[in-house]
Amino acid sequence: MEIDLNSDLGEGLGRWRMGDDEALMKLVSSANVACGFHAGDAVIMTRMVEAAKENGVALGAHVGLPDILGFGRIPMKIDPRDMQKHALYQLGALSAIAKVNGYKVTHAGTHGALGQMAQENKEYIEKILEVFAAFDRDLIIAASVKSHAGTFAKSLGLRVVGKIFADRAYDDEARLVNRRHPGALITDLTEVARRMSQFLDDGTITSVSGKRIKVDAKCVLVHSDTPGAVEIARAVRTVVEDGGGRIVPLTELAA
Amino acid sequence: MEIDLNSDLGEGLGRWRMGDDEALMKLVSSANVACGFHAGDAVIMTRMVEAAKENGVALGAHVGLPDILGFGRIPMKIDPRDMQKHALYQLGALSAIAKVNGYKVTHAGTHGALGQMAQENKEYIEKILEVFAAFDRDLIIAASVKSHAGTFAKSLGLRVVGKIFADRAYDDEARLVNRRHPGALITDLTEVARRMSQFLDDGTITSVSGKRIKVDAKCVLVHSDTPGAVEIARAVRTVVEDGGGRIVPLTELAA
Amino acid sequence: MEIDLNSDLGEGLGRWRMGDDEALMKLVSSANVACGFHAGDAVIMTRMVEAAKENGVALGAHVGLPDILGFGRIPMKIDPRDMQKHALYQLGALSAIAKVNGYKVTHAGTHGALGQMAQENKEYIEKILEVFAAFDRDLIIAASVKSHAGTFAKSLGLRVVGKIFADRAYDDEARLVNRRHPGALITDLTEVARRMSQFLDDGTITSVSGKRIKVDAKCVLVHSDTPGAVEIARAVRTVVEDGGGRIVPLTELAA
Amino acid sequence: MEIDLNSDLGEGLGRWRMGDDEALMKLVSSANVACGFHAGDAVIMTRMVEAAKENGVALGAHVGLPDILGFGRIPMKIDPRDMQKHALYQLGALSAIAKVNGYKVTHAGTHGALGQMAQENKEYIEKILEVFAAFDRDLIIAASVKSHAGTFAKSLGLRVVGKIFADRAYDDEARLVNRRHPGALITDLTEVARRMSQFLDDGTITSVSGKRIKVDAKCVLVHSDTPGAVEIARAVRTVVEDGGGRIVPLTELAA
Repeated sequence: MEIDLNSDLGEGLGRWRMGDDEALMKLVSSANVACGFHAGDAVIMTRMVEAAKENGVALGAHVGLPDILGFGRIPMKIDPRDMQKHALYQLGALSAIAKVNGYKVTHAGTHGALGQMAQENKEYIEKILEVFAAFDRDLIIAASVKSHAGTFAKSLGLRVVGKIFADRAYDDEARLVNRRHPGALITDLTEVARRMSQFLDDGTITSVSGKRIKVDAKCVLVHSDTPGAVEIARAVRTVVEDGGGRIVPLTELAA
Repeated sequence: MEIDLNSDLGEGLGRWRMGDDEALMKLVSSANVACGFHAGDAVIMTRMVEAAKENGVALGAHVGLPDILGFGRIPMKIDPRDMQKHALYQLGALSAIAKVNGYKVTHAGTHGALGQMAQENKEYIEKILEVFAAFDRDLIIAASVKSHAGTFAKSLGLRVVGKIFADRAYDDEARLVNRRHPGALITDLTEVARRMSQFLDDGTITSVSGKRIKVDAKCVLVHSDTPGAVEIARAVRTVVEDGGGRIVPLTELAA
Repeated sequence: MEIDLNSDLGEGLGRWRMGDDEALMKLVSSANVACGFHAGDAVIMTRMVEAAKENGVALGAHVGLPDILGFGRIPMKIDPRDMQKHALYQLGALSAIAKVNGYKVTHAGTHGALGQMAQENKEYIEKILEVFAAFDRDLIIAASVKSHAGTFAKSLGLRVVGKIFADRAYDDEARLVNRRHPGALITDLTEVARRMSQFLDDGTITSVSGKRIKVDAKCVLVHSDTPGAVEIARAVRTVVEDGGGRIVPLTELAA
Repeated sequence: MEIDLNSDLGEGLGRWRMGDDEALMKLVSSANVACGFHAGDAVIMTRMVEAAKENGVALGAHVGLPDILGFGRIPMKIDPRDMQKHALYQLGALSAIAKVNGYKVTHAGTHGALGQMAQENKEYIEKILEVFAAFDRDLIIAASVKSHAGTFAKSLGLRVVGKIFADRAYDDEARLVNRRHPGALITDLTEVARRMSQFLDDGTITSVSGKRIKVDAKCVLVHSDTPGAVEIARAVRTVVEDGGGRIVPLTELAA
């Protein structure tokens, strides 16, 4: 059993820090790096590229809405064609930093409210995936299980790996429970480990209503700003390795 | 006689516009496009890339200080190593937009106060040129005549074309007269044409004190935000063409 | 017949300009000044305060979403309680600039998408009006005719003046036609004058479907970024004055 | 002996946090609140106003350069007259938030590089102090000992309280040692306590070269982003109270 342990990193800005990027970079196998729109800046991005390279962590561009104050988590009715251009801008910036540092962006995805916005208007995710593919057909997409993103990315010829969240609750349709709901965030380490074991055993997660849902995933994400993120990541890693599995970067999982 | 007619374009932001990008794009042979730090955004950059491609205009990245309010014209004591990363970020963003649109960034340079800052501290321009070269050794640098940028860029193996400003006055050392001084900006069309003729005749410009200075240049720049920029650009083009010369992009001039 | 001729001014940013603030400040009787969130900055705001004072123009705070790139015209699901704080921040900033320059903010309102957002969620406009009232019970609200803003502002004890737009089309419910629709913007001077005459004659405007709607308004707004804004404002002024009416500031109209 | 224990608070932005505002608000007697230019936003400012009021902490506006990425610590050659307007904007924003929450801004000061810039060009601090005085002649200025700010503020009729930094080293002229020098920051609690005791005993601080300098101060500042800020603040408070002194807000100290 091979699993990609994935995290959103580099979510600081200027002198501000969000999660413990240094500790997480030593635990994960793939990193989604903020690219300066909802978080991140060129200095932090460079540090992330260097750390990813040093730790053999697959490097991804985590593109977001142009919204520092809202951390990219506030849905906005931006024109999807404009957002497409903003996404490309961000991907290009990170790619250049990677190139100069002898590394490469091998996956890409969307941050925050962009996922939510795509549920109401497919154009958001479609335009973004189209420009990802136009920039680099070899990019891997870690797409939420049962999401339109996964289906559409495949139709574009991109390689897709299914993704679940270790620190978030799901509803019966395998959609994330909104962050505003109590219980949306799972931070109890025993609970995280239990859910992870179940997923490794039979490929299911249990929804908030108690339903077991089959999910096709090989990528497990931990948000770096979830309280206890480092411990959660370590718990996931332990469950995988204790079960005889291996944590490997996305680049080794994408068919 | 072949001359590159060059302008800083795409200096709007969101709904704001600075110069007449559309008219200038039809007159110039090379465009330096703002990359989102002092001006410009992904939507405007895309429009500039498309227009440059359509008009056969060479595309350059015009990197600036992270300062929207000051339009990148306020010197700041930013760490040169940080500025290097910001420059790469901007170059990468424009390069990606160009790539997806079937075009290419072929030259790069600095905007506004970065030039002034480099006169006091060479590290600014050196770090930026180093990262330009590390990203793409084929980039052309249009460097102000007698500037350290030109010398240093050559030492890095980059191709350099000397540049003069059609709309700015020079002192006896061939340095730009500060914008705060009266007469720093030349907007009189007859004066622009006269200076241009002289330059084409004997390769000199006349300083504010009346001294004739020999300048090694093939690139003539017009700022898009100078009042009457379109007419100034047209005047330069007319003088060149009436004298039997040709306006050609930087890519045809760089040895 | 006394009419307030009103315009959104100071919508530049740094070196960028939007409308012709200088010309409009000489034509209008009330100005809604952008306060740094969707447009405007302290330097421009100061210039607007000085010009308003000099021309006897009533000074208003025009608060917007925190969104420079979108000019405050992109609806976003920001928490209404956060938006309330952003609105107060903006009103306070302009009030301080006015105070130091010996002038006063006498009215306040919302810019761009905030109006649209209020139609779906009343909490946006209610929270903002509540904080306007808490800051200064003497503020006047120029509220769109038949809007919840007008009713709610009155319930808070604020003085309200009904407002119509000289440069925008209306539907049968006296709501603005969305800017994305053709014909939403009215820029033909004859048409503007005709509509204005009709409004002065019988207090009605004609909707896009041809229906005559009675509107209770004394404030007529011209957007400074509408093409030909200065001529539109002049046309409105001419119609009013030729009909024996007077253009007077909001402060003289509010009961 | 009465001492004001003072700290820069509210230096987060959006979802980012800088220091432990909650803990420090319970320890200090005066708070300098960031106003949205180098840090802070309306939501955080509101939280700070509420907490200051609840804890009887004097409320100050901490105005900064318009520079989020550099946290206001990068000197920039901004026009002093523009900076004056930015300072007023910030002070007005915080004052409005205070007013609506039944509290009041009673002191004001400058953050970060503005102090350093004032050493080279007095116009920066003079313009800012002039606009503080024009807005509210009752504002108290906590001015660094032996600074031009103190002298100039007094000449404007403002009340001035001398300020020293508990967590920073001084040179022989009682100027702060630059943050880039090792030893500029004092984080050792024993050392902080020892320096504090000495100051309370004989009104002196010892410079980096070992010289004892007499300082006229009643305000002791701890930076909220200094590592261990809460413990440093507690150490200062303990030394004062163990020596029979009292920690009181600036408003009780200003003559």
